[in-house]
Amino acid sequence: MDKESIRTLKEQAKSAKAASRVLYTASSEQRNLALLYVAELIRSGTEQILDANRSDMKEAEDRGLPKAQLDRLRLTDSRVAQMADGVLSVAALPDVVGRVRDGWVRPNGLRISRVSVPLGVIGIIYENRPNVTSDAASLCLKSGNAVMLRGSAAAFCSNSVISDLIRQGLVKADLPVDAVSMVGDTSRESAVEFMRLRGFVDCLIPRGGKSLIRSIEDNATVPYILDGDGNCHVYVDRTADLEMALSILENAKCQRPGVCNSAETLLVHVDVAERFLTRVGEELAEVEIRGCDRTRQVLPLAKVATEEDYETEFLDLILSVKVVDSIDEAIDHIARYGSGHSEAIVTSELLMADYFKKKVDAAAVLVNASTRFVDGGEVGFGAEIGISTQKLHARGPMGLEQLTTLKFIIEGEGQIR
Amino acid sequence: MDKESIRTLKEQAKSAKAASRVLYTASSEQRNLALLYVAELIRSGTEQILDANRSDMKEAEDRGLPKAQLDRLRLTDSRVAQMADGVLSVAALPDVVGRVRDGWVRPNGLRISRVSVPLGVIGIIYENRPNVTSDAASLCLKSGNAVMLRGSAAAFCSNSVISDLIRQGLVKADLPVDAVSMVGDTSRESAVEFMRLRGFVDCLIPRGGKSLIRSIEDNATVPYILDGDGNCHVYVDRTADLEMALSILENAKCQRPGVCNSAETLLVHVDVAERFLTRVGEELAEVEIRGCDRTRQVLPLAKVATEEDYETEFLDLILSVKVVDSIDEAIDHIARYGSGHSEAIVTSELLMADYFKKKVDAAAVLVNASTRFVDGGEVGFGAEIGISTQKLHARGPMGLEQLTTLKFIIEGEGQIR
Repeated sequence: MDKESIRTLKEQAKSAKAASRVLYTASSEQRNLALLYVAELIRSGTEQILDANRSDMKEAEDRGLPKAQLDRLRLTDSRVAQMADGVLSVAALPDVVGRVRDGWVRPNGLRISRVSVPLGVIGIIYENRPNVTSDAASLCLKSGNAVMLRGSAAAFCSNSVISDLIRQGLVKADLPVDAVSMVGDTSRESAVEFMRLRGFVDCLIPRGGKSLIRSIEDNATVPYILDGDGNCHVYVDRTADLEMALSILENAKCQRPGVCNSAETLLVHVDVAERFLTRVGEELAEVEIRGCDRTRQVLPLAKVATEEDYETEFLDLILSVKVVDSIDEAIDHIARYGSGHSEAIVTSELLMADYFKKKVDAAAVLVNASTRFVDGGEVGFGAEIGISTQKLHARGPMGLEQLTTLKFIIEGEGQIR
Repeated sequence: MDKESIRTLKEQAKSAKAASRVLYTASSEQRNLALLYVAELIRSGTEQILDANRSDMKEAEDRGLPKAQLDRLRLTDSRVAQMADGVLSVAALPDVVGRVRDGWVRPNGLRISRVSVPLGVIGIIYENRPNVTSDAASLCLKSGNAVMLRGSAAAFCSNSVISDLIRQGLVKADLPVDAVSMVGDTSRESAVEFMRLRGFVDCLIPRGGKSLIRSIEDNATVPYILDGDGNCHVYVDRTADLEMALSILENAKCQRPGVCNSAETLLVHVDVAERFLTRVGEELAEVEIRGCDRTRQVLPLAKVATEEDYETEFLDLILSVKVVDSIDEAIDHIARYGSGHSEAIVTSELLMADYFKKKVDAAAVLVNASTRFVDGGEVGFGAEIGISTQKLHARGPMGLEQLTTLKFIIEGEGQIR
């Protein structure tokens, strides 16, 4: 990346910062108005978006992009309509800016309150889905933040058109146009420079795979929130309703195996192992099982589970299985191999449910429910920004709230120390 | 730092992690019991602590450590008694672990709650004050965290004795001894290795100066919370009660100039500048004033304030002054030069107070009160861990709450997606 590009990126960051100051105090009404304009502009600009997307698709096909990636890149009439609907549904969410989180009075009469305020400038690095452009921009605007979007090279034409439409919406609502901007240089070096815009980017949120996460861990100097691995477990306890357990396991494993809140490992109590695993063999026939010795006594066709299998987030129709002698063995297994994302127990015994909830250290612990519910929309946040696997600032599903920080307001009548 | 030392540090981190798992579910009663034992052991070990401190002091004097640093290193009977009292007062604070932050029910019947849980292992890097050893350890234990303490070379003997006493308290309370440990190697290289214990240290909190902060920004791979600069302003508005303003300014500047929540710059509205600055000249005679041209028309002996002065956290009896034409000019000055720590307005006009509270982006905004109140103890958190100048996780004064993260608990009766 040449000096000229770095200079351009810094100038852009400066403009975003200036815009964020205006957004910081823009009313909820004005921010929502901008979102309504954006939705309208996306709808009326459908043909323009699809044209740009066709040119992205053509180039991607010529370059031989894998089918799955092509699918993520492709836009259709209905996908564009979904983008516009998404913007409207964000506009309809309750406002998070200015919410008084708590407050109290000190013995000396000082009144103290903590109020939610925007973070400032959010940076988003993402991959091929062009819908992230409008999704992320609308969540940031809704929460009073400016945003710098850095999409992939493959989606560049689509993203440029979408972000231009969003910027038109900002102008129509009399908000600063640079509250939303796209990073023009989509090289890897530019991504690294982007991660190092300390003092400009208040929070970086990556939406990508392991290599992006690794690059952020190695290079970023700006604060960030990681949306990391999900090596999630379902533990079927001695007293579990086995049909319920089967339905939860099937949902957690098969409904959408490629996402972080799907299950990767089944732990099953020895007392019900034979009965349950037999049912698993019958009902989850499409799933490849990799099991411990005791698993393979019930399911002799299963492969042997290695240490590596227990560590792996398969993101595929593969399930590692272990028979355990006790809930403690299950909890120890989770502590050792889990990634701290989502861990479920299926049980009928209150004591076991409470014990599991208390002992397991993860972003989400579920009792008698599928791990697939660990998701911004499913827990009721109305919008999906990501699922944090870190412990600071945000943990688990993230909503608009996590795009804010707080401000102490301290009011007195001349108090001094 | 040789490979052997790095291995030792990693082993120590592993032990801390294992201890943190036990502490994660230890009852509030057991954690408090440990703190009571620790206080008792510190009290009864006073002579032992003072002996070790004398040997630290002797070496420090021989090496010619500056007087201010010697004072921070020195322990006395009463300082040791204060350490023990500090531990007891932490024990007396309300428990933060297990607190249900909020909860709701989803349309499908899932019950969701968010509960405060310990972070895991906290790392503390600090300088010469040996009391930080017991202060930090007790806050971490109280909040259910293990802690790795990395003090300075100069305080090594004192810190070792204090941490040994704390570890004895843990054993007496039947908690794992490695819940509190000292890093033996106090070299700079060891500090860098410590910052890179990703996967072991869940949160690093530095308590030190600019060079430590810079080293963390450059080297850390573990999550951290920075306790950064405080370039704080007092803005005296057109309608301010000038005697109140004088008392607040005097308190904010002079009560303890060397701390981050002291004021560095006075902004004064032009309409009251002459009257107010005359009083400042009379009452704050011991303060060196560096002012703009209009300031120097009133206080001709004041030096000229440079750009650099407005950017500087003096931490000394120096005050930069600027006369402004409007509240907007004051707010712009703060946005440009402030470090986002604590910003105060003195005014009688409601509209101006509200405008300032809304427009100024800082960890704390104060109306008619001294910036010195921006402090964990003063806002009512009962204990002082630091004041965060970052926006993620913690902003402003930090209490026990900021040493926790959350866990989603999701409970159902077999729900699937």
